Amino acid sequence: MNTHYKKLQSSYLFSKIGKKVGDFQAANPDQRVIKLGIGDVTHALSESILSAFHKGVDDQGSDESFHGYGPEQGYAFLRDKIAEYDYRRNGCDISPDEIFVSDGAKCDTGNIQELFSQDISIGVPDPVYPVYVDTNVMAGRTGEFVDGRYEGLHYLEGNESNGFVPSPPDQHIDLIYLCFPNNPTGTVATREQLAEWVAYARREKSLILFDAAYVEFIRDESIPKSIYEIPGAREVAVEFRSYSKTAGFTGTRCAYTVIPSECMVYDEDGSPHSLKDLWLRRQSTKFNGVSYPVQKAAEAIYTEKGRQEVRALSDYYLENAKLIRNKMTGLGFTVYGGENSPYVWVKAGESSWELFDELLEKAAVVTTPGAGFGSCGEGFIRISSFNHRDQVEEALERIADAFASR
Amino acid sequence: MNTHYKKLQSSYLFSKIGKKVGDFQAANPDQRVIKLGIGDVTHALSESILSAFHKGVDDQGSDESFHGYGPEQGYAFLRDKIAEYDYRRNGCDISPDEIFVSDGAKCDTGNIQELFSQDISIGVPDPVYPVYVDTNVMAGRTGEFVDGRYEGLHYLEGNESNGFVPSPPDQHIDLIYLCFPNNPTGTVATREQLAEWVAYARREKSLILFDAAYVEFIRDESIPKSIYEIPGAREVAVEFRSYSKTAGFTGTRCAYTVIPSECMVYDEDGSPHSLKDLWLRRQSTKFNGVSYPVQKAAEAIYTEKGRQEVRALSDYYLENAKLIRNKMTGLGFTVYGGENSPYVWVKAGESSWELFDELLEKAAVVTTPGAGFGSCGEGFIRISSFNHRDQVEEALERIADAFASR
Repeated sequence: MNTHYKKLQSSYLFSKIGKKVGDFQAANPDQRVIKLGIGDVTHALSESILSAFHKGVDDQGSDESFHGYGPEQGYAFLRDKIAEYDYRRNGCDISPDEIFVSDGAKCDTGNIQELFSQDISIGVPDPVYPVYVDTNVMAGRTGEFVDGRYEGLHYLEGNESNGFVPSPPDQHIDLIYLCFPNNPTGTVATREQLAEWVAYARREKSLILFDAAYVEFIRDESIPKSIYEIPGAREVAVEFRSYSKTAGFTGTRCAYTVIPSECMVYDEDGSPHSLKDLWLRRQSTKFNGVSYPVQKAAEAIYTEKGRQEVRALSDYYLENAKLIRNKMTGLGFTVYGGENSPYVWVKAGESSWELFDELLEKAAVVTTPGAGFGSCGEGFIRISSFNHRDQVEEALERIADAFASR
Repeated sequence: MNTHYKKLQSSYLFSKIGKKVGDFQAANPDQRVIKLGIGDVTHALSESILSAFHKGVDDQGSDESFHGYGPEQGYAFLRDKIAEYDYRRNGCDISPDEIFVSDGAKCDTGNIQELFSQDISIGVPDPVYPVYVDTNVMAGRTGEFVDGRYEGLHYLEGNESNGFVPSPPDQHIDLIYLCFPNNPTGTVATREQLAEWVAYARREKSLILFDAAYVEFIRDESIPKSIYEIPGAREVAVEFRSYSKTAGFTGTRCAYTVIPSECMVYDEDGSPHSLKDLWLRRQSTKFNGVSYPVQKAAEAIYTEKGRQEVRALSDYYLENAKLIRNKMTGLGFTVYGGENSPYVWVKAGESSWELFDELLEKAAVVTTPGAGFGSCGEGFIRISSFNHRDQVEEALERIADAFASR
């Protein structure tokens, strides 16, 4: 067996939450639990997307319009739209052949480490989405888990003093994971902060893996929506995007990864190799493309009507986030995120799990303990805005009642 | 970079074929090329599947029936049916929790090697589907490519004298890839032959990765449809299946992998670890499950009507295979496969690429050169039965004309 798997911490965050919620529900069968924990959307696919999805299924129903194996990189009809609407209209020079359609940003951010050598140095934010860390543990790029951290990783600390946006370190790191708008803190990086990272990566010949799964929630015009808005990023950055949160695709599955042609990795002699070519080879060998009707559904996001619908969906969740921010602030909590992000990051004033337990027991509301995202997440909880308005409002009332009596 | 990628042979089989076909078409713009090369289905999804697919899309259209993130292992509604219809009714004791639904057998057969240590010994058939070899090359489990083979792999030779079914070797091998009905040779393994492999794996504490993507084409009652028909296989075998060829899902994407609870891998101390648990951890970390409407579509395969439709589809392709077999035999070729398989394996009497070129130039028919599947494939071509009857018939007439005049 691959014994690196033995280093993985078995109590995965969401399993532990699930168990606590199950226990609470068993002890309180009359209480209706409201979930503001996991970042899963709750709203139906929009009209344009649904209609294109059905049309795609219809195409599979007659021999003339049937689609068998598609291109591993994704259909051109979708990649063309992505290049145009998500990049060129936003001033980023990205071409369709630099885009790879996939069934999830989780797969892509998890699989891309295969392209790198075993002995690279890796920087991961703390707190962070666990997939970046776990996939490198599985690949053997870390030591054991000691005192809450894996040996051999560089943790880029996010805390209140830096607004949860770590700066580039003094030493050299080969590979850097960044995620903005951030999961779990809901914070965003300014143009200047991203420019600092791009400058670092260019100077150090490092590579940035930029997870932009939540980009649709950015409303502040001054915040970059893509790392490619920073001059020079094409040489040093890969960007991951997903339709999961933006268009409600968590159960429908479609995402994409951008690797510019100038992005290079280096072999033992220091000779450059195209990262895009390596990823194409990886995907052609281990992946067979995304379901054709799903790609047709995703294409509809880029129609005028589709864009409006998707915007309305993120507006809705952002309004939820605002309600959460305001209520928690009003109750005296210090709050981050939730303005260009669906996540609100709340300072607990006690341990993460203590506030989690308190909210569950007193208000029957499920959140996510920040400690589950890394050491620097201790003392915080993440509240997700992905739910129906009436549920969010009821949850907030219950929390207000519980904390007024505290 | 992961420099093992540099060992990969760049001229991937199907790209080379694509280039030759493109060149031929450019030089002969009036000739209509018929493709009996790649193993891609050509028939529409059947009625029951389509209808369930639409219903699944409809579910995504209202908040009440909307499905967000599903279980990484696949929905129970599908895994229950697989266990019942594909296994229990066939006398195999497989439970739903041993089944992992995925978006393709290519992904699963490609990804599973991550669970094993770097220094295992690996046996791969020759000729063989290139994914087994290439994914191990990428992972660094081989040496360089020398004289048509990767150093460090054990090639299990299939040839006319063993009917393209290799026997277990004399020495120890940790991990063995087998594929029956075979791609590319179209041959099947008898119960006795599979029993020999299971006995070997039990004796040697080896693991068999059994690719059964073409099982739906087996008509001979004496041929096992699953490795789990062999007593003792639960401890030593993983089975991969796919709806791609059976139900026309190459563009729709759904497959599954079976890992019985008794299947163990061993750490450096020789302690056993559950392979199923490792795979679940891998999938939970790097995969987000198959699109919900696609799983609904796959479920319909197991209704009475769905089973009939799928059977009719494979009957159709098998009839094509029979026509190909008979015509090629009649033209004096020695022919294998094509009886419980959609692939016909034809002895060239010259080199693989020579016969490929001859068929393309004289008959405008595309096949697949056996040499592309390994050294032992040299001297053969694979003819696929995945096409419309009239296309197959026309292709065979053209071949007959071309070879009558030779």
